[in-house]
Amino acid sequence: MAVQVAVCGPAQCGESERALAYEVGRLLAERGAVVICGGHGGVMAAVAAGARSRDGVVVGVLPGADRSGAGPDLSVAIATGLGQARNSVIVHSGDAVIVIGGSWGTLSELALAMRRGGVPVVQLGDGWRLVDADGREVRGIRYARTPAEALEVTGLWP
Amino acid sequence: MAVQVAVCGPAQCGESERALAYEVGRLLAERGAVVICGGHGGVMAAVAAGARSRDGVVVGVLPGADRSGAGPDLSVAIATGLGQARNSVIVHSGDAVIVIGGSWGTLSELALAMRRGGVPVVQLGDGWRLVDADGREVRGIRYARTPAEALEVTGLWP
Amino acid sequence: MAVQVAVCGPAQCGESERALAYEVGRLLAERGAVVICGGHGGVMAAVAAGARSRDGVVVGVLPGADRSGAGPDLSVAIATGLGQARNSVIVHSGDAVIVIGGSWGTLSELALAMRRGGVPVVQLGDGWRLVDADGREVRGIRYARTPAEALEVTGLWP
Amino acid sequence: MAVQVAVCGPAQCGESERALAYEVGRLLAERGAVVICGGHGGVMAAVAAGARSRDGVVVGVLPGADRSGAGPDLSVAIATGLGQARNSVIVHSGDAVIVIGGSWGTLSELALAMRRGGVPVVQLGDGWRLVDADGREVRGIRYARTPAEALEVTGLWP
Repeated sequence: MAVQVAVCGPAQCGESERALAYEVGRLLAERGAVVICGGHGGVMAAVAAGARSRDGVVVGVLPGADRSGAGPDLSVAIATGLGQARNSVIVHSGDAVIVIGGSWGTLSELALAMRRGGVPVVQLGDGWRLVDADGREVRGIRYARTPAEALEVTGLWP
Repeated sequence: MAVQVAVCGPAQCGESERALAYEVGRLLAERGAVVICGGHGGVMAAVAAGARSRDGVVVGVLPGADRSGAGPDLSVAIATGLGQARNSVIVHSGDAVIVIGGSWGTLSELALAMRRGGVPVVQLGDGWRLVDADGREVRGIRYARTPAEALEVTGLWP
Repeated sequence: MAVQVAVCGPAQCGESERALAYEVGRLLAERGAVVICGGHGGVMAAVAAGARSRDGVVVGVLPGADRSGAGPDLSVAIATGLGQARNSVIVHSGDAVIVIGGSWGTLSELALAMRRGGVPVVQLGDGWRLVDADGREVRGIRYARTPAEALEVTGLWP
Repeated sequence: MAVQVAVCGPAQCGESERALAYEVGRLLAERGAVVICGGHGGVMAAVAAGARSRDGVVVGVLPGADRSGAGPDLSVAIATGLGQARNSVIVHSGDAVIVIGGSWGTLSELALAMRRGGVPVVQLGDGWRLVDADGREVRGIRYARTPAEALEVTGLWP
């Protein structure tokens, strides 16, 4: 089966995050990876558009119980009906998880991905950072500045 | 977006159910429909094999939190980690639901599909039948004897 | 920890089902069992009322993401936000599952409970019956005519 | 219906977090609030013990599909079978969410609670802090130093 990569990010995002997400989608499709995302707008729509620009397969795992709100570039829409509990489904379906941008929903995906363990979790660009009570950065997340670097630090394509 | 059809059936099944499922998968792929199934063996594996024989897209919505047990013919495996609650995800993701064979898990999918409402639910072949307290068949399920008839009675391809 | 019994039934029900559910709730509370139900109206509200009439603990496992629609007799409302996938949560939380009346949602709970295995599943009163392709009743479900008999056939109070 | 408060924290925790959690449980039970927690060890077990010391009602929303691992002080155990997707169920069931200590699972609960919106989310003690790309603390979380202060800043008991 193909490599699958979950790409997470907010439904409302700026132009720079949109560009990063589009490029991640494009690069993943070029390598034959399936993209798993939340299926709505913003970063989710941009990664889908990027993947479809290279004929990639993109699955949107939607919070709702029907396919309303599904973006136009999805190959498949999974209507979970689970609300935000669907975030756990997204992060368990990737061989790696790439997070772009900051929002509470996105943070929950990053945290659930780290909680899952055993898969690389990459933060691309300027998202939120976690510090402990002493102000030190919490360990475990991999950071990348560019889409190419994000794919590289997953370690999936050595 | 492509039409999506959920195909449900037991992980242990006989040869006739396997043949029906394979043929349903083949016919759906020929019409360009995405197949959504439970991703494991038996009817699930057969419908996936049939769809892949025509280069169709098949999504396995797995009960486990990783992709173990995913059949070889899936295009995408969604690792829900939800156990049998994933049955609700499967039936909400189809524009129609086709059920082949009888088991408790399959019955739960048929019931959840009918509970959802608004989508055709088709029972193909000799599955379990529901009768009310007076022995009369409960209404609402559509019945089909052949794979071609199953697709026809969905009404998705008029 | 106390014995927990899941009681399932439709939100719309007749007077006889309501009376059966109320009595089941009352008997369970008298034996110190926690009642788990779907938290809405009909059979769910009746079993809650019966349990509360004897100061029992009743947990409503709601489909919605907030507590709206929660019945007045619940001790606790769990807002799952899972839609009908919450049916799986209900049946996994009982040491036995008692089903009263017929509806598609209720049938899904009966089927999920049988799929779970290892716990007694009791149908009380005149619900739907399952027959196989030869018209024979599908095995495994226990039947009861009265609330007292329903508790007895669970085997939880020998 | 009684006020319900979700209390979240790691299964492995230090003595100070355990003491904070026990005291939160005790105070909530004294005010008649139902405690919703994850049902396992550490902070979850401590808040349950505190609540039971005052005869409070404590519901453990477990990740597993049976009641194994349920702590001894729970009044009710909900066996969700959802894995970490159950974190979403916990935070939707509280009129307020109190978070004690830091772990990835706990962070996911904090994030899901903030994503939900409309309910007070309180961090008690020295957990992880979130800063944006400019090093500024992300807004919206309420902070408390003591259990009494945690209840006070929920605003549920004015």
